[in-house]
Amino acid sequence: MNARTDAGTRIEKTLEAAIARAGGEGAPPQLAAAMRYAVFPGGARIRPRLALGVAGACGNDQPGLAAAAAAAIELLHCASLVHDDLPCFDNAATRRGKISVHCAFGESLAVLAGDGLIVMAFEILARAGVEAPHRLAPLVTTIAASTGMPNGIVAGQAWESEPEIDLSQYHRAKTGALFSAATRAGALAAGGDPDAWRPLGEFLGEAYQVADDLHDIASDAADIGKPTGQDAAHGRASAAALLGVDGAIDRLDALVADAIASIPPCAGAAELKAVIRVAAERFVPKSLARVAA
Amino acid sequence: MNARTDAGTRIEKTLEAAIARAGGEGAPPQLAAAMRYAVFPGGARIRPRLALGVAGACGNDQPGLAAAAAAAIELLHCASLVHDDLPCFDNAATRRGKISVHCAFGESLAVLAGDGLIVMAFEILARAGVEAPHRLAPLVTTIAASTGMPNGIVAGQAWESEPEIDLSQYHRAKTGALFSAATRAGALAAGGDPDAWRPLGEFLGEAYQVADDLHDIASDAADIGKPTGQDAAHGRASAAALLGVDGAIDRLDALVADAIASIPPCAGAAELKAVIRVAAERFVPKSLARVAA
Repeated sequence: MNARTDAGTRIEKTLEAAIARAGGEGAPPQLAAAMRYAVFPGGARIRPRLALGVAGACGNDQPGLAAAAAAAIELLHCASLVHDDLPCFDNAATRRGKISVHCAFGESLAVLAGDGLIVMAFEILARAGVEAPHRLAPLVTTIAASTGMPNGIVAGQAWESEPEIDLSQYHRAKTGALFSAATRAGALAAGGDPDAWRPLGEFLGEAYQVADDLHDIASDAADIGKPTGQDAAHGRASAAALLGVDGAIDRLDALVADAIASIPPCAGAAELKAVIRVAAERFVPKSLARVAA
Repeated sequence: MNARTDAGTRIEKTLEAAIARAGGEGAPPQLAAAMRYAVFPGGARIRPRLALGVAGACGNDQPGLAAAAAAAIELLHCASLVHDDLPCFDNAATRRGKISVHCAFGESLAVLAGDGLIVMAFEILARAGVEAPHRLAPLVTTIAASTGMPNGIVAGQAWESEPEIDLSQYHRAKTGALFSAATRAGALAAGGDPDAWRPLGEFLGEAYQVADDLHDIASDAADIGKPTGQDAAHGRASAAALLGVDGAIDRLDALVADAIASIPPCAGAAELKAVIRVAAERFVPKSLARVAA
């Protein structure tokens, strides 16, 4: 088993343990099912892989805490997808190639599933933090700040409700925040310096945003498992609209190169660069890869 | 300033600091306003007062952490009110004597305000926990378990979506969980034994539930600032329906007496009993107090 498979296994096991505990004695069965449905099967798990990759590069001396941090970030990402798909936001019928949570379980359980996943993220962090109490406060603070107000993914989603949108705030909060949290949390969980790993998360967050814009205009729904053309339909600004498809692809390549160049000198740098190259390949929609080939 | 006024001031100041930070640089203005609206002006702040009362009874050697724990519990309570009022749940137009959050700000911002308040609760705990790192993990675990799945207030709300409701699980999770968290978190923040304070929270949670059922049938909406008759309208089980009004009042009195009797021997017991008696008086609807007089 190589390091990449191993990371994927650790992420799924940590998520599975959390979801199993949530469905334990006394649980309302439908909400337990809705939360499981929201988390499995997952997408590319890009953010938790990034967190584990950075933890590994920093020595990973507390693997349980690093796995919890990675899983917490994925749970918060899943929660945001469930809530963003609700009728009052994108009203999306599909997600990750299957029916969205509110269409499968109803709106009430979708709201509660998102709430339950947010709480679960902090609970698994705290349970793992018993082993390394001095790392817990900065970890929770970093992850919470990247999720809530004023600059986290909740704030990012809220910009869509404003009459005048601050575009750079919007993208930085909606997408960049959780990528930046992933690299910093990975470092914190392993006793590393979070600030040294901030640029990596920020470059990758911006790259992911450009890729997401490209997806939205260039792929068909079957490719990515959710409705496309949403930016135009909802009047949202998009890098592809500003730069054109070719310009956006160039920008994406440059951001991934910047991300790799930003990795601080460390023992695990080569392995981490490989993780990032694989993740970046997943960013580009199949239909664009076909055009480029 | 007596201890009770002082506790009230500390709670409001801690909440104000958290809400001010959420509205800081880069915040989407409408979500910042919706979160402030959901928290101020507050209700009776019964749960955070209880948490601070127990912290005081345990010596309160980390007042910043105790205040953060109390405020975190209130933020989670406020978040649950915002989400419970949504059209897909109670569809309530009023709350705490004013227009509910989704009616004032729209459904999207109400969903996000609840999300933001949940995240904020854990963020303020972590920020205060830097001063006492060994207390942070059990505090976050206790508060998260009382909020999420399988036994917290989110689970309690989810029982309303089940075809067959487990009544005792429903009440214990929906109301009891956060009262029990309040006493245990107050103890944990002050270095006390959380299990010794569990019965106090559980008795008061059950008392509050009985009082809430009485409110629902006996008061008019102007008395309590939210729609009444909701249990009957939504087909929910109620202590008043099972025991009759007189029986429910007797049950309430017995539970408050049990709560007071459960307080462990400690220096601050007399002050804490006074806090509980005042809180219990607020439980009973004015119209029933008039009938009883």
